[in-house]
Amino acid sequence: MLTIAVDAMGGDHAPKSEVDGAIRAVRSLDVRVILVGKQDIIHKELAQHEGVRDLPIEIQHASEVVTMEDSAAKAVRTKRDSSIRVASRLVRDGIAHGFVSAGNTGAVMATAKMVQGMIPGVDRPALASAFPTLKGTPVVVVDVGANVDCSARMLAQFAVMGEIYSRVIFRTERPRVGLLSIGEEEHKGNELTRSATPLLKSLPICFIGNVEGRDIYTGDIDVIVCDGFIGNVALKVSEGLVDMISKMLRESLEETITRKIGYVLARTAFQDFKKRVDYSEYGGAPLLGVKGVCIIAHGRSNANAIKNAIRVAKEFAGGRANERIEAELGGSQLSNASVAAKAD
Amino acid sequence: MLTIAVDAMGGDHAPKSEVDGAIRAVRSLDVRVILVGKQDIIHKELAQHEGVRDLPIEIQHASEVVTMEDSAAKAVRTKRDSSIRVASRLVRDGIAHGFVSAGNTGAVMATAKMVQGMIPGVDRPALASAFPTLKGTPVVVVDVGANVDCSARMLAQFAVMGEIYSRVIFRTERPRVGLLSIGEEEHKGNELTRSATPLLKSLPICFIGNVEGRDIYTGDIDVIVCDGFIGNVALKVSEGLVDMISKMLRESLEETITRKIGYVLARTAFQDFKKRVDYSEYGGAPLLGVKGVCIIAHGRSNANAIKNAIRVAKEFAGGRANERIEAELGGSQLSNASVAAKAD
Repeated sequence: MLTIAVDAMGGDHAPKSEVDGAIRAVRSLDVRVILVGKQDIIHKELAQHEGVRDLPIEIQHASEVVTMEDSAAKAVRTKRDSSIRVASRLVRDGIAHGFVSAGNTGAVMATAKMVQGMIPGVDRPALASAFPTLKGTPVVVVDVGANVDCSARMLAQFAVMGEIYSRVIFRTERPRVGLLSIGEEEHKGNELTRSATPLLKSLPICFIGNVEGRDIYTGDIDVIVCDGFIGNVALKVSEGLVDMISKMLRESLEETITRKIGYVLARTAFQDFKKRVDYSEYGGAPLLGVKGVCIIAHGRSNANAIKNAIRVAKEFAGGRANERIEAELGGSQLSNASVAAKAD
Repeated sequence: MLTIAVDAMGGDHAPKSEVDGAIRAVRSLDVRVILVGKQDIIHKELAQHEGVRDLPIEIQHASEVVTMEDSAAKAVRTKRDSSIRVASRLVRDGIAHGFVSAGNTGAVMATAKMVQGMIPGVDRPALASAFPTLKGTPVVVVDVGANVDCSARMLAQFAVMGEIYSRVIFRTERPRVGLLSIGEEEHKGNELTRSATPLLKSLPICFIGNVEGRDIYTGDIDVIVCDGFIGNVALKVSEGLVDMISKMLRESLEETITRKIGYVLARTAFQDFKKRVDYSEYGGAPLLGVKGVCIIAHGRSNANAIKNAIRVAKEFAGGRANERIEAELGGSQLSNASVAAKAD
């Protein structure tokens, strides 16, 4: 049975969502969970639930908490007993197979990179996020914010890692990989996309060329590669637009009695729809490229999102995604070592 | 009375939308229109409408048509009698005050830049697009695709031009200008945003600092500045997401009889909502920085979108936006001349 550590102090609703999510996970997923954070607080939260005594849940005390206001550097430098750091150490020491945090993203990334270390052949960790699509099959976008000002070589590594993620977690047989740009033709784009294209073509993946922002949601592509600045903007723009649309629609639907009745009758349709675009079903974004497994959940994660993040951590560890990444990148032309040898 | 030239051969529904939109414009806007393109085709389309004989609409023949497949370079080099080129010449020669095209965006931009020339003090033209927001006041995003790999100085020029656009077209009294980035703190972002921040701070505009992708739709910001690659991705991601959401919602609403009845009762709410997010109300994206006025309408423009693009062209010319841009940038630290003198 695999063991996943959960930062119980991280998200906006911590420790409630984390504890509740952990209970749901161990009840349904054949997994052990170690809740990491202030022991008394976690105990108190666990006590709210019935029948948890015999569940495979442990507590690992950590005396400090990284807040959303802490800079990543400060968190790493000064809070050596934070729940993030302790959870990451459990992974490094082989006590847990992976860890989940809905806390300060920058701090989680910096900690995982430093404590767990990088997979040989990977220059920088990348954050991969799954987006819903019209066809129902999720699309993986990588990187969504771990790196800005990326090099072509980094994008090629993202492609390899994203492709393996899509295979392991979404069971895509032959993931189609696209490069996010502003036109389908090869010459369109910026310096980065033009220099990345030949590298991406040389990889043993199904690279289909440039794709545009509107292709994210069609379901025709399985993995989309981009600089983390672009991916983060795409992610946040989408969140903002969904918020606006829901609010506007609700306002419109509440304006007259007839509309209100219509809404009541059609309500299940909205619930269906919400489920189809619900981020919490995807369970967080893996930080690809670090040793061990690190899943970054949304700060707003509810219990369902945490449970799904634990599931993704488990599948990621069980699917040996990291071994596959190392096999692809460790000895490739793209690795640090080989490139350094060629004095690129 | 101002005169606007309309490329009658450009959009997906040309010349129908263009001719219909021109008729609506002259009937409601106190404006003259010159329809540019193949004379016989435009004549035939005009003949479908009644009572147009006395309207202030003229036809200017142009023997060639730029297709969506033509590269901008090819269009400019070989199709010297295209409807785009002839319309642009009408502006250069002072016969029209501005022109509207729903045709090949790259070709329109290249043609306008070459034929009409640049406003003194502006390095490169920028495409400004208005997005709907939750508060109802549109936000101007600039650049949405005219330039990639921008410099900090270009972003500063976009800020000045976008601010004037917001004042002239949307009558915003003191537009709040933000820099699109991946975190609100100044140190977050990429090399470009970090180097642009001090320049933006030095401008006589209300610069509020970094904003994130999700801030586009809140209505709290009036002008958002970014590299054209990023802006184009934001625009296309939004289009793709709206498409997906509408299709998913429609599917859900058609699944059961109860939901269908609900939909019928609530239909006016959906219509209201659609109007609030309807791109055609904004009437196209001005190409800021070129002499004269050039408005690029969406390829899918219907008659209403064309009419509104003509309105924007008229207001842009009438509001003397270009004179204001020249006044702000012509003698500023940001202009080519002053920078060249300082050997930057």
